[in-house]
Amino acid sequence: MEPLFELAIRLPGAGSRDLLREVHRQLRAAILDGRLQPGARLPATRTLAQRLGVSRNTMLAAYDLLLSEGYLLARAGAGTYVADTVPLSRRGRAVKSTTRRDPRLVPLNVPGADLAPTLQSLPSRDDFRVGLPDTGAFPFDIWRRLSDRALRRIAREPADYADPQGQAALREAIARHVSFTRAVGCTADDIVVTAGAQQAFGLLARILVVPGRTVVAVEQLFYPSLREALTAAGAKVVTVPVDAEGLCVERLPPEVRVICVTPSHQFPTGVVMSPQRRAALLAFARARNAVVIEDDYDSEFRFAGRPLDALQTLDRAESVCYVGTFSKSLFPALRLGFVVAPPWARASLVRARELADWHGPVLGQEALAAFIAEGHLARHIRKMRKVYGARRTALLEALARHGAGRLDVIPSDAGLHLSAWLRTGTRDHTVVARAAAAGITLPPLSRFAPDPQAPGAPNGLAFGYGLVGESQIDGAIRRLAALL
Amino acid sequence: MEPLFELAIRLPGAGSRDLLREVHRQLRAAILDGRLQPGARLPATRTLAQRLGVSRNTMLAAYDLLLSEGYLLARAGAGTYVADTVPLSRRGRAVKSTTRRDPRLVPLNVPGADLAPTLQSLPSRDDFRVGLPDTGAFPFDIWRRLSDRALRRIAREPADYADPQGQAALREAIARHVSFTRAVGCTADDIVVTAGAQQAFGLLARILVVPGRTVVAVEQLFYPSLREALTAAGAKVVTVPVDAEGLCVERLPPEVRVICVTPSHQFPTGVVMSPQRRAALLAFARARNAVVIEDDYDSEFRFAGRPLDALQTLDRAESVCYVGTFSKSLFPALRLGFVVAPPWARASLVRARELADWHGPVLGQEALAAFIAEGHLARHIRKMRKVYGARRTALLEALARHGAGRLDVIPSDAGLHLSAWLRTGTRDHTVVARAAAAGITLPPLSRFAPDPQAPGAPNGLAFGYGLVGESQIDGAIRRLAALL
Repeated sequence: MEPLFELAIRLPGAGSRDLLREVHRQLRAAILDGRLQPGARLPATRTLAQRLGVSRNTMLAAYDLLLSEGYLLARAGAGTYVADTVPLSRRGRAVKSTTRRDPRLVPLNVPGADLAPTLQSLPSRDDFRVGLPDTGAFPFDIWRRLSDRALRRIAREPADYADPQGQAALREAIARHVSFTRAVGCTADDIVVTAGAQQAFGLLARILVVPGRTVVAVEQLFYPSLREALTAAGAKVVTVPVDAEGLCVERLPPEVRVICVTPSHQFPTGVVMSPQRRAALLAFARARNAVVIEDDYDSEFRFAGRPLDALQTLDRAESVCYVGTFSKSLFPALRLGFVVAPPWARASLVRARELADWHGPVLGQEALAAFIAEGHLARHIRKMRKVYGARRTALLEALARHGAGRLDVIPSDAGLHLSAWLRTGTRDHTVVARAAAAGITLPPLSRFAPDPQAPGAPNGLAFGYGLVGESQIDGAIRRLAALL
Repeated sequence: MEPLFELAIRLPGAGSRDLLREVHRQLRAAILDGRLQPGARLPATRTLAQRLGVSRNTMLAAYDLLLSEGYLLARAGAGTYVADTVPLSRRGRAVKSTTRRDPRLVPLNVPGADLAPTLQSLPSRDDFRVGLPDTGAFPFDIWRRLSDRALRRIAREPADYADPQGQAALREAIARHVSFTRAVGCTADDIVVTAGAQQAFGLLARILVVPGRTVVAVEQLFYPSLREALTAAGAKVVTVPVDAEGLCVERLPPEVRVICVTPSHQFPTGVVMSPQRRAALLAFARARNAVVIEDDYDSEFRFAGRPLDALQTLDRAESVCYVGTFSKSLFPALRLGFVVAPPWARASLVRARELADWHGPVLGQEALAAFIAEGHLARHIRKMRKVYGARRTALLEALARHGAGRLDVIPSDAGLHLSAWLRTGTRDHTVVARAAAAGITLPPLSRFAPDPQAPGAPNGLAFGYGLVGESQIDGAIRRLAALL
């Protein structure tokens, strides 16, 4: 049975890059709206390529992308199937992606992703997804106790709305924590609590970006949801190269007003920004009255050397908005992050939060405040630093042992993931698709590029070690290396 | 000592309405940035009026406003003082309100409130603030048990980000709850969970409003934070009169694209929209392809008659986005609300939430899902309906007994507050200021008008009965009536 007969795929007569995009988009839409049912077997790439009049390489690339995104599954020797693990909500939601936009809707300004579901890889046995911490050793019993205590306090007081800036106890605790661990000089007044880093990006964009006018620089490569928050706010986003010293400050366009960087552990490459570049970036910001958004998402986990000062610490011109999150040091389900805001931005930022959702849930904030104040956060970070350090060592050894000559590890000594350039001719999304079929999940570095499907897109792999056990690592990397 | 000597208040040479605004704004700024310290005694209005060259009535009105907002305290026979209960965070934040806007900041488009703190009345002994429920009888022990259980489940699973649309179990529970209690026909797929109604308004504005172009109608009077969310999104907000049958549909301007209404219990007047008006509104929306945002914030609490069908229930053209909240039926610290979205809006709404803050905290969502599914929400609502019903009866009796001829109660048989028109010559903010000095907190209806200080602003009082005990009510209303 050839399920694609009825799919009515129509292709533009354009160059092969557009063709790949279209084939990929239309196949995905067919999966999401149920025209291609879970478990359905797809025709061989050769067959389908002929029928659609595209090259077999284009067809292979489209299958690879869908495999790497988890929409398809390849079974060794048995062909390619529609995955039956695509989350239901994603299905339901995406039915709309094939219909025309209702005229009542306003575009969200997120290129190509307006009505499409987020592309996310699905979990597997050997799970190297990035940005997810290990919660196996998290002291949930302590959290439960602190949470119960906070709830009892809430129960005693009459109902009321709370401070949009965040609970005072939590801001106090965060200020002490970042002053101590990151030498970020601040008090509770400087902290604005947010619903994770994503809300921090959105609120900062809200108060810094004039829609259609403000030029914002992000690193190339970058965290896709950061760019989406910026473009959704109407920013003109430009990408600026990153080398072994971090962001190439001299490549910043003069008209840039906001610069988003991950100096402690560049996302996703892991590069640490050098002291010279930090000084140059701050000088640039000062000279041009630009704002730096410093995203310090996982620098609690350092495995060598002394941490470099945060940009916020070095800043003498109130140029830096420092964004922190508890999604990596605790767990993402918590949805708590914060901004250390310079004085001139604070009132607007608080007001923007108030307009967005008034304030965050009180219970989680109070529990976290006590968790930090009683030293549990610092203890948990110390404990996890050892766990992640051991995994990182195992990963580096495995990559050296099995990947030498094919995988070039990018030096990095912090965070929850490592990245490596691919030195074989194979494209990273092809490797990722093959790996998915072999039960290994990891993201291709091209996913973090402005145009993942461009011929010149970066070619590499990222290895998160939040979800994978130390003992699994060597075997998984060995199997992965065999696929290169 | 006259602390105002050094305040350098500068007044425009304009009409008295502008003068009042300026005097009010500058005095408030002086309090907020500490130039006027807590406990400082203010000069007599006559003295200050002379010194500033304004009429004594203007000065009195400015003091009244500051008293009603809680910035000043009047001690009987002892003059007027700066309150020492202005929350610290409000102080810290508002220091900025006297400085010029930093050129790096983008205006938030919220008229007059860009850098200013939210005006909110402060609690008192007899607290008639609106929109706040009684949590004294809330089963926090059950909540704690369900929360603990949810936390244990989270602890068992590897860390991951969750569904931006909301946890499936919660959407399922909400869908059944509103289908049952409000005859709002929907399934879990139609529900988008939000961080309270405020985020729902913001996200709907995000997907429905073209900045600077889209005309949005709100009721006159209205909930100020709703208008702020709309104007912040760039909407051109128009107000449309409300009479005894609800929104005057025939007064909607033809170019309106979005219409925000509170048909079950108009905020703040309490009027219920008649069936004829409901039909007319839906016909209008259908004919003009406009969208209706139905804010059903407290209709769980009904004290007489059969509830009228929700607009969402009557809608046959997918025109209605129904907004619900758990801030009134449970407690506001939870920050959970939802939208029942028509199919054409759902994907965009989910995507807007994902861009805003990815998803809500999982723990609170899971606890609420179990709380609803196990019947605790329905039970709590039944219990509180009796409590609030008794308070409402006591309030109606007290208003009839002590306020007859001076306070005209607006008929209403649902919700957590009642409103009444003032039939004396006194302005509502003057009454509110006097009441505050007597330990009674309640909002003036003029606060919910487009221009609270306009001479033609509505003149009345709202009485919330979420925080005030049944036995307090008669005494408080008697003391209030004596002030009229």
